[in-house]
This record gives sequence, C-alpha cells and structure tokens, in this order.
Amino acid sequence: MKKLAALTSILLAAPLFAQPAAPPPPPVTVAPWIHALRDDALANDHYAWDITEGLTTEVGQRMAGTAAEARARAWSVARLKAMGFSNVRVETFDMPVWVRGPESAEIVAPFPQKMVVAALGNSASTGPAGVTGQIVAFDSVDALRAAPDAAVRGKIVFVDHRMMANQDGSGYGQFGAPRRQGPTLASQKGAIAIVVRSIGTDHHRNPHTGVMTFADGAKPIPAGALTIPDAEQLVRILGRGQPVTMRLRLESTTIAAAQSGNVIAEVPGRDPSLAPVMVSGHLDSWDQSTGAIDDASGVAIAAAAAKRIMDAGRPLRTIRIVWFGAEEVGLFGGNDYLARHGKEPHYAIAESDFGADRIWKVDSKLGEARRDEARMIGAALAPLGIVTGSFDEAEGSDIGPLLASGVPGVGLSQDGTRYFDIHHTPDDTLDKVDPAQLRQNVAAWTAMLGVLSGGIEPNARARR
Amino acid sequence: MKKLAALTSILLAAPLFAQPAAPPPPPVTVAPWIHALRDDALANDHYAWDITEGLTTEVGQRMAGTAAEARARAWSVARLKAMGFSNVRVETFDMPVWVRGPESAEIVAPFPQKMVVAALGNSASTGPAGVTGQIVAFDSVDALRAAPDAAVRGKIVFVDHRMMANQDGSGYGQFGAPRRQGPTLASQKGAIAIVVRSIGTDHHRNPHTGVMTFADGAKPIPAGALTIPDAEQLVRILGRGQPVTMRLRLESTTIAAAQSGNVIAEVPGRDPSLAPVMVSGHLDSWDQSTGAIDDASGVAIAAAAAKRIMDAGRPLRTIRIVWFGAEEVGLFGGNDYLARHGKEPHYAIAESDFGADRIWKVDSKLGEARRDEARMIGAALAPLGIVTGSFDEAEGSDIGPLLASGVPGVGLSQDGTRYFDIHHTPDDTLDKVDPAQLRQNVAAWTAMLGVLSGGIEPNARARR
Repeated sequence: MKKLAALTSILLAAPLFAQPAAPPPPPVTVAPWIHALRDDALANDHYAWDITEGLTTEVGQRMAGTAAEARARAWSVARLKAMGFSNVRVETFDMPVWVRGPESAEIVAPFPQKMVVAALGNSASTGPAGVTGQIVAFDSVDALRAAPDAAVRGKIVFVDHRMMANQDGSGYGQFGAPRRQGPTLASQKGAIAIVVRSIGTDHHRNPHTGVMTFADGAKPIPAGALTIPDAEQLVRILGRGQPVTMRLRLESTTIAAAQSGNVIAEVPGRDPSLAPVMVSGHLDSWDQSTGAIDDASGVAIAAAAAKRIMDAGRPLRTIRIVWFGAEEVGLFGGNDYLARHGKEPHYAIAESDFGADRIWKVDSKLGEARRDEARMIGAALAPLGIVTGSFDEAEGSDIGPLLASGVPGVGLSQDGTRYFDIHHTPDDTLDKVDPAQLRQNVAAWTAMLGVLSGGIEPNARARR
Repeated sequence: MKKLAALTSILLAAPLFAQPAAPPPPPVTVAPWIHALRDDALANDHYAWDITEGLTTEVGQRMAGTAAEARARAWSVARLKAMGFSNVRVETFDMPVWVRGPESAEIVAPFPQKMVVAALGNSASTGPAGVTGQIVAFDSVDALRAAPDAAVRGKIVFVDHRMMANQDGSGYGQFGAPRRQGPTLASQKGAIAIVVRSIGTDHHRNPHTGVMTFADGAKPIPAGALTIPDAEQLVRILGRGQPVTMRLRLESTTIAAAQSGNVIAEVPGRDPSLAPVMVSGHLDSWDQSTGAIDDASGVAIAAAAAKRIMDAGRPLRTIRIVWFGAEEVGLFGGNDYLARHGKEPHYAIAESDFGADRIWKVDSKLGEARRDEARMIGAALAPLGIVTGSFDEAEGSDIGPLLASGVPGVGLSQDGTRYFDIHHTPDDTLDKVDPAQLRQNVAAWTAMLGVLSGGIEPNARARR
C-alpha cells in the first residue's frame, strides 16, 4: 500500500513537472577514508567469515538456554577478546527452555506413508505414543477461524498457505500466521493437534520450525510443521476425497528456568561522554542446524565492521557490539538489554539478522535534525549498489523495542530471496553463506559505522 | 577418455578437409504421422504426469520386497488395465530385503553436535547402542586402500570425494566408489564402521542412500552416508587437528526371503510373429522418498509413449512395457526378466531411469544393418533439439545384461545436471518433476516407438 501511494503521487505530480521545484538538498560529501575502509572490506574482509565459520564449526547449534548456547557464549568471549575488543562481558538472564524430543508423522489411511515433521517451539508433547486423528484441512488461518468448532473438535488441523519468495522478505508476516495463530485457534476449537505447511519457500524435505505461543487460556496442544513437499503431498491425498488419518508424535520437554545471556564488547570512543553506536545480531540458533545465516553471519558482520573501524583508528564515539542470546524463542536477550540499558542514550542502533546475502537498501530513522547524516550513510553505501530508502524506518528483532521507544536506528536490508528457503531448517549451514556477499555486508556496515562513529583518529598501524 | 579421443580425431582430421570426403548418406524421411504424434505428446501428454502423480501420491515409497512395493504392483496392474493395455501381468520373484531402522550420528568430541546420516543398503546394524570411535579420514577410496591396516583398525572410517554435477551424469561411476568399495575396504582393514560423504551434488541436509555389497569374506560393518553439509562440517572439524570421536547408530534388519515382481503390459502388434519392442523403467524406489524421479517418471514415460501409439492405431510390432521390481537393491527384476525372457528375440529395448528432465541425446545400438532406422530415430527426435549420438551404444540398469548379450537397444539420455542433487534422498518428491520436460520425454519416446514399432494402422478413433 505504501508503494502504491508513492507511485500514485509520482503520477499525480507529473503535470507539475514544469512548475518550479523545491531546490535539491546540497550534496553530502563522504570522507575519502570511509570510501577506502569500505572498499578494503569489500575486497579483503576475513573477520566475518572467520567468525561465521568458527562459531558454526566449533560450537554448531546454539539453542537458547542450553549448554550449547553457554559454549557459544564462552567461545564468543574468547574470540572477541582475541580480536582486541574492550569491555568484553556477558550479561546473563534466566528463561524457560523448550527441548525437542523424537518426532515423526505418518499417514495411516488411505495411503500409508511417512512424512517429515518438526515440532514448533513451545509445542505440547504427544508423549511417546503419539496422537492419531483425522485431518481437517484449511487453506488459511482465516478459514480455520471461520470453521465451526464441531468441524475441528477431536481432529488434527492442517493449515496450508502460499508464501512465495520476495527480495524484501515480505510474506513472512502474513503467511506466517498458520504457525503463529494456528495452534491457539486449533486448541480453542478442540483440535487434538495441528500441523502447518512449513513457513518457507523451498521444496526440500526439511521442515521449518519456529516459535509460537499459546494465547492465554488456550490449552497447549502438539503443533508441528510439515515440510513443503509433504504438505503438498497431504493436499494431493486429501484431494482424493477419502478421510485421511495421521499419526503424529512430537515429544518435547520444558525446563522452567535455564540461563542465557547477551555477549557485549566495545571499541572505546575518544569521547566517553558521547552516546555509543550499537551494532548487533543474535548468538542463539534453532536446534537443528548450525545457524549459519540465522544468525552466525549477523553477529559476524556487526563485529567485523567494528573491528575494521578499530583497526583503522579510534572512533569519536564508542561502538558497542551486542550478540543477543535467546532471540529465536522470544526475544529474551533483547528484552533483557532493554531492561538494563533502555534508559541509557544510544546514538544509533542496528541489527543484522536476515542472512548473509547482499545488502540492497539502507533505511534509517535518525530524526529530522540528522537528515544530512542519514543522507551521508546513503552516499557512503551507494557505490555498493545500495539504494537509499526511507528516512523514517529502521528495524531489527532484538532492537525492535528500543527502536519503538524512539532510539535512532539504521536498517541495512539484505536480499531475502533465498532466506526463507533455509530459515529455521536443518539446512542453515555454512555452505549457504556466499563469502563475496558476506564481504559486501561488512563493507556496508563498515561504511555506516564510519559515518556514525563520528570520525576516527588514525592509529599508528593505520598511518603506516 | 572417449570424448578426448573424439576431439583428437577431429583435430587430426582438420588438414584433410580439402580432400574429397565420403558422400553423405542419403537423408532419411520421417513419416508425417510420427512428427504429428511427437508434437501432440509434447503439447498435450498427461498420461506420464498422471502416472507419476498417482503412484507417488497413492502409494508413496516403494521399497523393494516390502508391502509398499506390493501395493505399487497392485496399483500398477489396475492402472495399466484401465489405460487399455493387454496382457497385464506380474512376474514375481523372491529376494532378501534389508530394512532401515532408527539412525543417527553425532560428534562426541571435540565439538559436540548432531549430524544427519542414512544407512547404506545392506549396512550391518549397530544395534540400539550404536558404536563410538575415532574418525580416520580419507579423501578417496584409493587413499583408504593405501592406508596401513593399523591406521584404520578399531576406528570409524570417513571417505570424502569431490563429485560435481554434469549434464551426462558422469561422475557417479568414479565418485560413487566411496559407497560401493569403501565399506568392503574399511571392513577388510578392521574398521568398526564407515561413513561416506553422500554420493551427490547438492548442499542439503538430506543424505543419499544407495546399495552396496560386501565382497566375499568381508565382514559386514555399519555403513552410512553423511549429508554433504555434514561431510564438509566434519572436514572442517578434522581440520582443527584434534582427535574427532563420532557416535553412530545405524539399526537395520534383514528378511531372508520376500517377494518382488515385474509388472508387464503390452500393446499387441498386427504381426504377433515379430519380435516385440520393449520399453521400461523400474517400479521400486528407495524408502525415504516417493521416488518421483527415481523412477516413477521413468515407468510413466515408457507407458505414456506406448499409450499414445496405441491410441493412434495398431503398431506392426508388439510393444511390451516392463516396470521392473527391485532395481535399487541389486537389479533383481532385470535379472529375473533376463532369466525368463533373455532367450526370446527382442526387436529393440530401452529403459527410462535418469529422472524427468529433458532428453538431450539419443544413442542406439541397432546394428550396422539397421543404421538407417537408427538415423531415422535421430531425425524424428531432432525437432525436439535432441542430438544424435553414437550408433554403437545403449544403456539402462535393468536392461544392461540384455544389452550386453547383444539385444538391440536405444538410449535416450536425460539431462542429469539436477539428478544427483536429489537421487536416493528424501527429497525425491513430485515437485522435482517439471511437467513440460516430462512431456518432452514422452514426445521423444513416442517418436522413437513410432519408428521402432514398424508403422501403425490407424484405428477408428485416430481416423476421426
């Protein structure tokens, strides 16, 4: 809708082209050292790859609140210290942990066959015996919502959707409804379980997990995601017109209180009285993959850019790196940071959490008074082919509440065309990261930090 | 090597271009009705899709010797009869059946993490406790062969390889050695188990299974395939230089004698005294997918082409359709057909067993006396963009022994670029079949059958 409105205003404006226009703003000038740092990152960065490769290889999956995530924090502290950052620390917090158990799905009748399923985060457990029931199918959450309870009660709900891949990742919000709302709706109508078509855009036998939360009063039921080939198979089987029976086994356990934490490191600024620039990603991953694009690459990009500034000299403002814990299962790390630091001033904040493919757009929300600074970020990134987008937007999952509270932010949009092929599946592995595109990310973040950190005082090494 | 030799002969021949050349053979003329049948199949065929979709949906996986394969035979008999074929029958045979059980792999040290593995067919069972051992890695079967027994004894062997995707599917022979020879070599050297990099060309967390056989005297050991992302992860972990310990659980059982069978149907020729033309594919699949490209599409293409000839009129020669059983686990169906029918004359034989992507080349081995007929097949297929290849080659897994015994054959080569991304994985599902390329296959097979079946007598329906 927003795009349509913009187009309409261009079309309506066409007859006015002959009128005197407002003078264009004077060009902003990007310092040559920012161009140089950006291009050096584009050609030579290895920090981001080294972090992504190291974290995924030496730790692997990093499910929030588990021993694996604790190993990831220890790994991160050691790595960030070894890279020369200051004030490296962990801010821990407690959280409940949902732990996946054995899981399987099979069509019992009319055409017996196994399917591939993954429980959604916070699914109830079927126990080892599983549950067996007739499938009742809906092509959307709205159709499920409209169904009479009697049509659903005692059955296993299946909710389909038609999400397609888009560069900007749009679709995940709307088409993710089966996962987010489906379980609560199915429970409220008396279903014994729910399976959804994986919220994704690929055609592989790898299910897409993801968190969901039962609304207050809704009794938790087993909830899983079928792979997209299996969901399409189920639709074909249902299309034969006979009752379809599924046996579903989704075992899981919940640990009431476990520990997670945010890992924080800094590049101290020349003027400690100034508010810091915060760059971030999240350290935890889902449990079935090494979380290479979600979000090892994100923490790597943020830290690599800060490292490249640090190597070049001392920035005016402190750069703070935050590797959030427990993002996937409910933004626990972001909320903990908000509680501890939400009242402190931040000069700007940004998060990388949409994979490792090229950045194509930069949005920002620095406020009207800092419009030239926002334009300068656009000018610094334009040689990478990055479009300057809105001056009134920025986003990021962990930093969302901070942004909403008015903290200035920048949003570097990654190409999401491939993202939901891989997102939250066992397939999120290092081979999905393209080193050249990863370097482009670091180049963009370095240039952005060059602008936001307020200028560097070249250090001895950089002056050589 | 063969291709290099051909290139060399072209280069050597270059100076001779000015010499008088042998006169080109007179052009062959393809009957207009063959062009018409081919183009109608290309535009309109639905038989192949209907069979592929029906078999994969209503039966699903069809592991040889199991109840699922028996259901597939019953489904096939009903479908082939409903399509109007004659002499629809099953020729059964007995065979041993290896049945997959629970399976898992994990790195125990130095970086604990799970990996995704599938047992290879005929793997020994680890039992529920699994086996745990240190990994000893080799980058090829030759390196394993060269290793001293002491380096292998008591360990879990890992064999890597570098197979890449090729249009002609080459690479599977050479780079499949870890699966075919690795287990025997590892066993002979005293290994407790072996894992290989999946014999495939994708980067998904879906392992490629496949059959292997222990050589006489080699004690069966557990043998599995890691997914390619996991194999690459293992290589990175090994690269850290610390001893790597894996726990491997590959449970399986073997049933000494179960039943499989070949499903046979015919289009009776006008002259029953003439040898039949046989077209084929295999009905069984591996157990982890619905076997859409391996080989539901193959049986579908062969039958769809025969159906299109039958709909057009009565061919001079009988067309025999054979849907082989138990190909994947050791060519049991092909061998049974050979034992029963190997002495009977066949005018020509062909098999479709390389997916559903476009045919790009036609080879044949009809003998010198039938060169014009072979050229006519090439001419009939050229409008589809299909290259005429060798006049001395034909291939097919089930029909290999028949071809080797001198039976004339035709080989329609499918584009294999994507084939080994999917082959023998859980990902071999209907969505991998491109309906347009499937129709191109049927068009080519129909035109080939138009030539080989010796001309049709248009039937009443076709004359309308």
